[in-house]
Amino acid sequence: MKLDFVTSNSHKYEEISHYLQEKGYQCRWVRMKYEEIQADTTEEVSMASLNALENLIDGPFFLEDTGLYIKSLNGFPGPYSSYVMKSIGNEGILKLLEGMPRDATFITVVSFRDQKGKHQFRGECKGGISMEMRGKSGFGYDPIFIPDGEKKTYAEMTLEEKNRNSHRIRAMESFLSYLQEKS
Amino acid sequence: MKLDFVTSNSHKYEEISHYLQEKGYQCRWVRMKYEEIQADTTEEVSMASLNALENLIDGPFFLEDTGLYIKSLNGFPGPYSSYVMKSIGNEGILKLLEGMPRDATFITVVSFRDQKGKHQFRGECKGGISMEMRGKSGFGYDPIFIPDGEKKTYAEMTLEEKNRNSHRIRAMESFLSYLQEKS
Repeated sequence: MKLDFVTSNSHKYEEISHYLQEKGYQCRWVRMKYEEIQADTTEEVSMASLNALENLIDGPFFLEDTGLYIKSLNGFPGPYSSYVMKSIGNEGILKLLEGMPRDATFITVVSFRDQKGKHQFRGECKGGISMEMRGKSGFGYDPIFIPDGEKKTYAEMTLEEKNRNSHRIRAMESFLSYLQEKS
Repeated sequence: MKLDFVTSNSHKYEEISHYLQEKGYQCRWVRMKYEEIQADTTEEVSMASLNALENLIDGPFFLEDTGLYIKSLNGFPGPYSSYVMKSIGNEGILKLLEGMPRDATFITVVSFRDQKGKHQFRGECKGGISMEMRGKSGFGYDPIFIPDGEKKTYAEMTLEEKNRNSHRIRAMESFLSYLQEKS
């Protein structure tokens, strides 16, 4: 089965297509930038993007939105993770967290449109922010996020190691079980 | 002449209606929350909001979007100023700026829809971020912003003092000269 994934982020495409291939699906990259709304949750941003694209794309497709929620910063950068990365980056996050608790959660919400309607699948991964940036793999906040039970940051892991338990793959697992039930 | 101003922010309404009244205009408060997009500039956010509201409101109306752009933080928080205020707040900004240059610019973009179409008016105020929060007036980043040539933060000023030179009022001045030319 072929699945159309809309994203402009090559890292996200790599992680998700690698996972889908392992599961026997083919992932087609619809490389497209789209406007995201400002909202309080990753769910809302992800659904608004699906709504904005639904008339532009034929047939079933999915997209995802991901946010890093840091507890002691009231959820910052949350739904604005990509903008915050471009402006203050990991250095800014580390500075904001000096002397503060470092618990954080990565949340991915996959939104899917098929003949039956619109569906969302959520995946999260709890962990903490490291004391300094470590590792060269991945993208975004990967160099400062350590999943619970791990010693490495995401950026110190191979794609296979990151995919084993990541927020993004957990959302994809729940998406695939929907597809399997349906068929 | 009556002008319809769409905002959910009572402080913005107060500043702008006070100014308009002085200039002989009546300002009607259309108290409404609306979705904002994620974009790189205050112009884009402001225009997208106008577009989103144009079919919901009869007759001419205006709205404004404001951002604080801090040079050494690559323009952060910029178009995300209201979210950043809710999450890390002024404390977070002061922490991010420890040991860094403090130049900043406040930018307001007023967007107006009339029979002739859509129009934007921009106002900016250059200044710097104070070393600590000062003052109780105003809202948002007012306690940490000192306009060039002033000693007080916006939050240490009366509404009349702030309105004398603010980004918001500069945008409104340019809006009013458009209205006056037109009539």
